[in-house]
Amino acid sequence: MPVVRVLRRVACWMLQSPACGCRAPVLPSRFLGTSPRQIPMDANFHSTSFSEADQQRVLITGGLGQLGVGLASFLRKRFGKDNVILSDIRKPPEHVFLSGPFIYSDILDYKNLREIVVNNRITWLFHYSALLSAVGEANVSLARAVNITGLHNVLDVAAEHGLRLFVPSTIGAFGPTSPRNPTPDLCIQRPRTIYGVSKVHAELMGEYYYYRYGLDFRCLRYPGIISADSQPGGGTTDYAVQIFHEAVKNGRFECNLKPDTRLPMMYIDDCLRATLEVMEAPAESLSMRTYNISAMSFTPEELAQEVLKHVPELQVTYNVDPVRQAIADSWPMNFDDSNARKDWGWKHDFDLPELVTTMLNFHGSESRVAQAN
Amino acid sequence: MPVVRVLRRVACWMLQSPACGCRAPVLPSRFLGTSPRQIPMDANFHSTSFSEADQQRVLITGGLGQLGVGLASFLRKRFGKDNVILSDIRKPPEHVFLSGPFIYSDILDYKNLREIVVNNRITWLFHYSALLSAVGEANVSLARAVNITGLHNVLDVAAEHGLRLFVPSTIGAFGPTSPRNPTPDLCIQRPRTIYGVSKVHAELMGEYYYYRYGLDFRCLRYPGIISADSQPGGGTTDYAVQIFHEAVKNGRFECNLKPDTRLPMMYIDDCLRATLEVMEAPAESLSMRTYNISAMSFTPEELAQEVLKHVPELQVTYNVDPVRQAIADSWPMNFDDSNARKDWGWKHDFDLPELVTTMLNFHGSESRVAQAN
Repeated sequence: MPVVRVLRRVACWMLQSPACGCRAPVLPSRFLGTSPRQIPMDANFHSTSFSEADQQRVLITGGLGQLGVGLASFLRKRFGKDNVILSDIRKPPEHVFLSGPFIYSDILDYKNLREIVVNNRITWLFHYSALLSAVGEANVSLARAVNITGLHNVLDVAAEHGLRLFVPSTIGAFGPTSPRNPTPDLCIQRPRTIYGVSKVHAELMGEYYYYRYGLDFRCLRYPGIISADSQPGGGTTDYAVQIFHEAVKNGRFECNLKPDTRLPMMYIDDCLRATLEVMEAPAESLSMRTYNISAMSFTPEELAQEVLKHVPELQVTYNVDPVRQAIADSWPMNFDDSNARKDWGWKHDFDLPELVTTMLNFHGSESRVAQAN
Repeated sequence: MPVVRVLRRVACWMLQSPACGCRAPVLPSRFLGTSPRQIPMDANFHSTSFSEADQQRVLITGGLGQLGVGLASFLRKRFGKDNVILSDIRKPPEHVFLSGPFIYSDILDYKNLREIVVNNRITWLFHYSALLSAVGEANVSLARAVNITGLHNVLDVAAEHGLRLFVPSTIGAFGPTSPRNPTPDLCIQRPRTIYGVSKVHAELMGEYYYYRYGLDFRCLRYPGIISADSQPGGGTTDYAVQIFHEAVKNGRFECNLKPDTRLPMMYIDDCLRATLEVMEAPAESLSMRTYNISAMSFTPEELAQEVLKHVPELQVTYNVDPVRQAIADSWPMNFDDSNARKDWGWKHDFDLPELVTTMLNFHGSESRVAQAN
């Protein structure tokens, strides 16, 4: 294809500023059969224009991570149990296996992905497979394979089959040179972990597939997610989960961050709801394809004060871990999510008081069950 | 390796702001034998601390592109003809083959790269292999393979063998949401070509390998490069080469950009000198590892005025190509390269008058030779 004709295409999508109306000429063409790795120049897909009433068929990759199981049960209420397929490369625990469709998937195996999408007539894909910050640093080449090559496979299969694709990004996609309070949607992003570097790449490649092929790519930068039913995983924001375990179990909590360390946080229910809402938002309402989302931004001190209202005997001490403190000090303190609120009406439910009540109720009931057994 | 120990490492390099003195603990360890793809957690390399007097052994990948041959002859004057090896996946023309060492290399073949580095005791690597903007859009999956997987291979082999590595980035690494006049080193980078997306990834991955493994990674964002002895390649800044061909050949020139389209430009001699200077700069002088470099920023109108001083009969008309205009309008107008000038003394030689004189002399002599034959 002569270079000039190529340049014509390059310019056409380069110019589409998020606000401008001239969307890429999105032809509902489908291309099948040609190797997906060689997506032809003039290929142009559009997320199969299911009207919302049509039946979505959902696939979740990396389903056994912190959020996958919760997302599956949340989406099954919306789309029906059998229309939401959880998948992972690992065997599921019994209760997960019995809770709804589960299937093996390996995002590094393009043909396996394609087979799943075709056999199950998938329309939406939530791509949760990733090696997160600490685990990624322990195995850089695997993180590179999963977070980058795996993402490329997912983008190709989504583009080839006109899927609507959700990929999460993270506060870890920012680095020490990003503005921290607040951190806007568009700013300097020079993270220093393989996880952060691969998530910036995921954002930019997803947007490129959107401008270039019309792929219906949508991405949210998750803050620190607090979930009641998952153990702290050794991450920087985990203190905000541990405090509830410790408060209920033994009335003492040693925090490994400084009392005034402010970080953006969100309760898992808000996170899952935001994920569905951005996926259900009409495409024309999206002025961008990667959004910050926010709910709370608090410090250990503020969290402790709130917990003390319920557990007055709780003793909180601080033993700062320089490692976690260094990471926390390089992350955003506050997410500016005004675009999400303006474009698709994002609004969080859980502020600090509701978070604390919910977490203590969960942990309180759990410990009463434990005592009864 | 327990997650906490991993976090300790993550924090240690996350915190190193370019200015802070605490470099990663750079142990001159070498690791050989283990698979490079599994670079062990505590691997830490240091560019083999050759003193400048020692003999550099240089490898250039993608050597047959616009700059490779020029760089080879430039570096051979500095390091000696036999110490600069040009390489590419394509057969070289006769005159290139006879001008110095040339070898086959395939950056997608990690073992081939490693063999070349070991057999030739390479110390510096200039990585020029890439599919540029227009060509990349014509073959996205090849661009993805060469520009991303190929880059990963080069980073691994450079880290494994303690090489000093130069990777060029580009004005194409910026997009419509970046500041354009001037464009600083650190700002929003959301390009819309696979070339631009892959070059942002190259910058961030290279910096990650620097912070994480101590790899001596150095990167310059090249503006539009004007070279006398290469034909216009269909790129957006090519008008600034064509005008000289046309002025000398037939005294008429039709420009495909608007007269007031300002773009950063540089003559190839400045580009090659900057590339060597940043590679020879003492590591401690580098406050960052990716720099803008600049020389000129002019419009077609300003260039035409300068050429008219030498070729008064030249007739310049404008027939704007919306494609190229759209790309030019999304690129920086002016590069802020104050960090390069402050840190390692960058200073360009060729301003617009010198550029025009040099280019006309070259094309003038060429056309006189053509007439004589």
